Amino acid sequence: MAMTGVLRPGHVALRVLDLNEAVRHYVEVLGLFETARDDKGRVFLKAWDEADHHSVVLREADEAGMDYMGWRVASDAELERLAGDLQASSLASDFSWIAAGEHPATGKRFRFTIPTGHVMELYSQKDVVGCNTGYTNPDPWPDGLRGIAPSRFDHCLLYGDDLDGTVKLFVEVLGFGVAEQVLAGPDKLMIGAFLSCSNKPHDVAFIRQPVKNKFHHASFLLDNWNEILKAADILSKRKVSIDIGPTRHGITRGETIYFFDSSGNRNEVFSGGYIYYPDKPTITWTDDQLGPAIFYHDRKINDAFLTVYT
Amino acid sequence: MAMTGVLRPGHVALRVLDLNEAVRHYVEVLGLFETARDDKGRVFLKAWDEADHHSVVLREADEAGMDYMGWRVASDAELERLAGDLQASSLASDFSWIAAGEHPATGKRFRFTIPTGHVMELYSQKDVVGCNTGYTNPDPWPDGLRGIAPSRFDHCLLYGDDLDGTVKLFVEVLGFGVAEQVLAGPDKLMIGAFLSCSNKPHDVAFIRQPVKNKFHHASFLLDNWNEILKAADILSKRKVSIDIGPTRHGITRGETIYFFDSSGNRNEVFSGGYIYYPDKPTITWTDDQLGPAIFYHDRKINDAFLTVYT
Amino acid sequence: MAMTGVLRPGHVALRVLDLNEAVRHYVEVLGLFETARDDKGRVFLKAWDEADHHSVVLREADEAGMDYMGWRVASDAELERLAGDLQASSLASDFSWIAAGEHPATGKRFRFTIPTGHVMELYSQKDVVGCNTGYTNPDPWPDGLRGIAPSRFDHCLLYGDDLDGTVKLFVEVLGFGVAEQVLAGPDKLMIGAFLSCSNKPHDVAFIRQPVKNKFHHASFLLDNWNEILKAADILSKRKVSIDIGPTRHGITRGETIYFFDSSGNRNEVFSGGYIYYPDKPTITWTDDQLGPAIFYHDRKINDAFLTVYT
Amino acid sequence: MAMTGVLRPGHVALRVLDLNEAVRHYVEVLGLFETARDDKGRVFLKAWDEADHHSVVLREADEAGMDYMGWRVASDAELERLAGDLQASSLASDFSWIAAGEHPATGKRFRFTIPTGHVMELYSQKDVVGCNTGYTNPDPWPDGLRGIAPSRFDHCLLYGDDLDGTVKLFVEVLGFGVAEQVLAGPDKLMIGAFLSCSNKPHDVAFIRQPVKNKFHHASFLLDNWNEILKAADILSKRKVSIDIGPTRHGITRGETIYFFDSSGNRNEVFSGGYIYYPDKPTITWTDDQLGPAIFYHDRKINDAFLTVYT
Repeated sequence: MAMTGVLRPGHVALRVLDLNEAVRHYVEVLGLFETARDDKGRVFLKAWDEADHHSVVLREADEAGMDYMGWRVASDAELERLAGDLQASSLASDFSWIAAGEHPATGKRFRFTIPTGHVMELYSQKDVVGCNTGYTNPDPWPDGLRGIAPSRFDHCLLYGDDLDGTVKLFVEVLGFGVAEQVLAGPDKLMIGAFLSCSNKPHDVAFIRQPVKNKFHHASFLLDNWNEILKAADILSKRKVSIDIGPTRHGITRGETIYFFDSSGNRNEVFSGGYIYYPDKPTITWTDDQLGPAIFYHDRKINDAFLTVYT
Repeated sequence: MAMTGVLRPGHVALRVLDLNEAVRHYVEVLGLFETARDDKGRVFLKAWDEADHHSVVLREADEAGMDYMGWRVASDAELERLAGDLQASSLASDFSWIAAGEHPATGKRFRFTIPTGHVMELYSQKDVVGCNTGYTNPDPWPDGLRGIAPSRFDHCLLYGDDLDGTVKLFVEVLGFGVAEQVLAGPDKLMIGAFLSCSNKPHDVAFIRQPVKNKFHHASFLLDNWNEILKAADILSKRKVSIDIGPTRHGITRGETIYFFDSSGNRNEVFSGGYIYYPDKPTITWTDDQLGPAIFYHDRKINDAFLTVYT
Repeated sequence: MAMTGVLRPGHVALRVLDLNEAVRHYVEVLGLFETARDDKGRVFLKAWDEADHHSVVLREADEAGMDYMGWRVASDAELERLAGDLQASSLASDFSWIAAGEHPATGKRFRFTIPTGHVMELYSQKDVVGCNTGYTNPDPWPDGLRGIAPSRFDHCLLYGDDLDGTVKLFVEVLGFGVAEQVLAGPDKLMIGAFLSCSNKPHDVAFIRQPVKNKFHHASFLLDNWNEILKAADILSKRKVSIDIGPTRHGITRGETIYFFDSSGNRNEVFSGGYIYYPDKPTITWTDDQLGPAIFYHDRKINDAFLTVYT
Repeated sequence: MAMTGVLRPGHVALRVLDLNEAVRHYVEVLGLFETARDDKGRVFLKAWDEADHHSVVLREADEAGMDYMGWRVASDAELERLAGDLQASSLASDFSWIAAGEHPATGKRFRFTIPTGHVMELYSQKDVVGCNTGYTNPDPWPDGLRGIAPSRFDHCLLYGDDLDGTVKLFVEVLGFGVAEQVLAGPDKLMIGAFLSCSNKPHDVAFIRQPVKNKFHHASFLLDNWNEILKAADILSKRKVSIDIGPTRHGITRGETIYFFDSSGNRNEVFSGGYIYYPDKPTITWTDDQLGPAIFYHDRKINDAFLTVYT
């Protein structure tokens, strides 16, 4: 098999302060499609080009942030194997199996906590409800799109303290590659890691910060820089709070805009980047170049980048 | 491991009628970089964002066309395993090992012929000479680009008779997925197959035609539709023969232009497409929609598509 | 005054074979907005960024084609002066005044026939109904756009025999400049003229053909090449007949796609071009370069360009 | 005549602190072409698509800023008439004629000072040296471009106190239109005016500030938003100080990036905007919407906008 093990980030579960406002944001502004609500009041959504039942889960809570991130694994056997590997390693904790059906249309999920404090899940089954263009003689994009309308949920950027442990877990147990890293000081302390289980420049990224289990942003994929402009226009029309952008990241080369949902969770839509392979040399950024690494044009980090998270 | 087995198309070896003219085309018009010449008169080239020593090999010959296509495998062990699997299957023939160093900077290659008559190779070692931006605090693109300047060699489209055998080999032995297929008639004969070993919509594609070992095009990756326009402008400025485009393919959604090198080998530069996963439903085109499948805007195939190949 | 005399092409009146189908095309596919219908059954439309009441007039008839093209003049006084100049010249014929109100929301129009047989009108009053974003703190583009959604009607290309007379009339009487011309043969016969009364590369263009009063296309303005791709996608989705494109014109440098309305009248949407000034040197194309002049990438005229008109 | 009187901003004369550094900036980074140096040490430059001999003049001085801005007038007769009108009005002062040849390849210039303290010139003759593609069968863009490579010098934004007087002069004497204005407070004090003598959204703009004769930026034209990204990348590669962008202006809708030359003079490259006509309703921004008026995405003015000028 050419692709195996962990295939992709399959869902991100976010806490929002007001569910109705949040749904309005994720549906009308971001342009996702609601696919289900459950009896716990959770709302499940997906982007137009995703085949699987959902990729975003919203839950009303007193505090914004991320509950967990779920990873699609290639097969039931891989799920069992990876669950065993995680339990055998000393790098994860708080293991549990979530029963099939706890997420609608989704098989059982293996849940664990990583050294930076984030909760992750692996699963191997989620119903294919299909993308909006279908799979027979499809048009390149569907009618009926609203708002920014990214094609997919792409990755998260997360903040936490034990970056070394988390990177070790993703690389050694889950088989990810380090596409890019930021090294600080003479001891070359890794302060940022961009991890890929695919040909994407990142499927998840971590920044070392003295916190546990913090959420920086969830990112969604657009086709190109013109779509970033359209996104920026839509955000301004809707008076959505923009953090920064349109601009380019040095890391991953991606074209980007950051903004906030109605609860203060940061979203990104981005385009571009390169094709990653596991044998590609890791790109290293030195901390004196952290500015252009994060925001290539401004060449400096804005205040919010390091201080605003949920 | 998240990515294993066959990683990518690593090189394509093309026959050209006049080597100097061909080098001028591939360097000045297409914008590749020459990395080596050998004592057999072969010229080795790579695109600016590729790490490995070469991705295109040119050889002067009396007839244009493709000699072979080489595939990078994840490890030496995978190379041995896949060589064994190929020999054990009844789907390939004419096996041989090419010694390390026969291509400069390249390890040994396992060569075989597939049912459509094309020669393929697997290899696991090629020297990393690095991309033009380097891997430390890189700029998003390098200075010194010329011509169209794609970032990578991406895939080939090939013509041959025994499509069933070739697809079976790529899927069952080499672990590829069928991203898209074209089915003809009431018996749903597969007449086109777009195969992926990665997150790309295709790493190689085959069209059923009553020929052996024919080459339709080698394709190179651009960032976006604006780069396709710039490519078209450059081709017209240089009076290079354009086959068709700028346009969009229905298959893969890619934005594209086809043109011919100085020997009549077709090149493509393209952008766009989607993220493929092995569990993504195969997209099926029916032959009554073959027009938009191939050229989405014209909705019909041009004469050259089926009749001009090398 | 910096701009005076003839300001712009203000409307084009087209004959269509089926009014309902035509309205569907111009509203849902092209994306104009209907602003009025009159008791003669005519439908009046405008693009979203136009201030004036209408720019396209549709009338059902047995034969497609253009009834007339109307030009906005800077003032009532200029209208009277230009009407007098036209009558005094030997270059126009069939003069008449159309009463105010014959077009809704429009002042009186001075009608005349030019040497190529086309009917033209001058007028100085049309009600401002306003663009869709308004003029107070406007967003850059409005909500509620459908289809291709050009911002403006831009120009027409017309076919006729007495090109010399028509060009002389537009230049000497109406004050236009020749932005570009195509000259044929050793005698440098002008076979194409692209005429501007503004900073646009053309406000109207004529091709010499042995016919009277023929219509090649009406063109509408888009922002950029990405919008051309989106237009092409929409046209293919709606199964609208595309003539050629996306491509670039050599003449004007514009990025373009040609297609047909439901009656066979050709439309264009385009973007780009340069800023024209009356003192800019005229660009001359020689007839051996007529291919790239018209379609810069194909470098040859398609069959339809010279043979399909209404 | 359709276009008459003042045709366009023909040149801007800037003071720079180090001429060699400045030439390097304007040639290698911005991508202008040097066309002459004179015995006063001034350097004359033009953009690739401009026909006339020069559009930017650099002079070494102890303080950065703008010496004057020159306007091309349609004819000698218009020059004489406008010079007379200016002298007859009470709105300008410090009249003088600069002899032909004082700028190389340029006829005599009529110089005057406007109420905001800026020095302006009118002239009717400048040698046509031609654009880089020529005027016979031209390609859409020339070979040999470097850096950002705008096609034209487009406009200036200037700061000064007597905005009313300056606007009155441009409108009543020079025939400009007010494309957009910013009105502040209950008395609707005009604090910004964007003035056009053409179909461009602005040929010059003024912001009311309690200063005389200050320069905010000189702006150069790009084709599209992708060129803005390329410009931003080039600026970051060259470590040029970027003020803000890539972003969009609410005023004019233009896509933009602001940056500084080596002396602290602000430059802009921009694309987009609409087609202005003298009968188009003036767009009005209220001061509570000044943020999105200036920077549509951030919806607030950055510190530098009002405080950094030369």
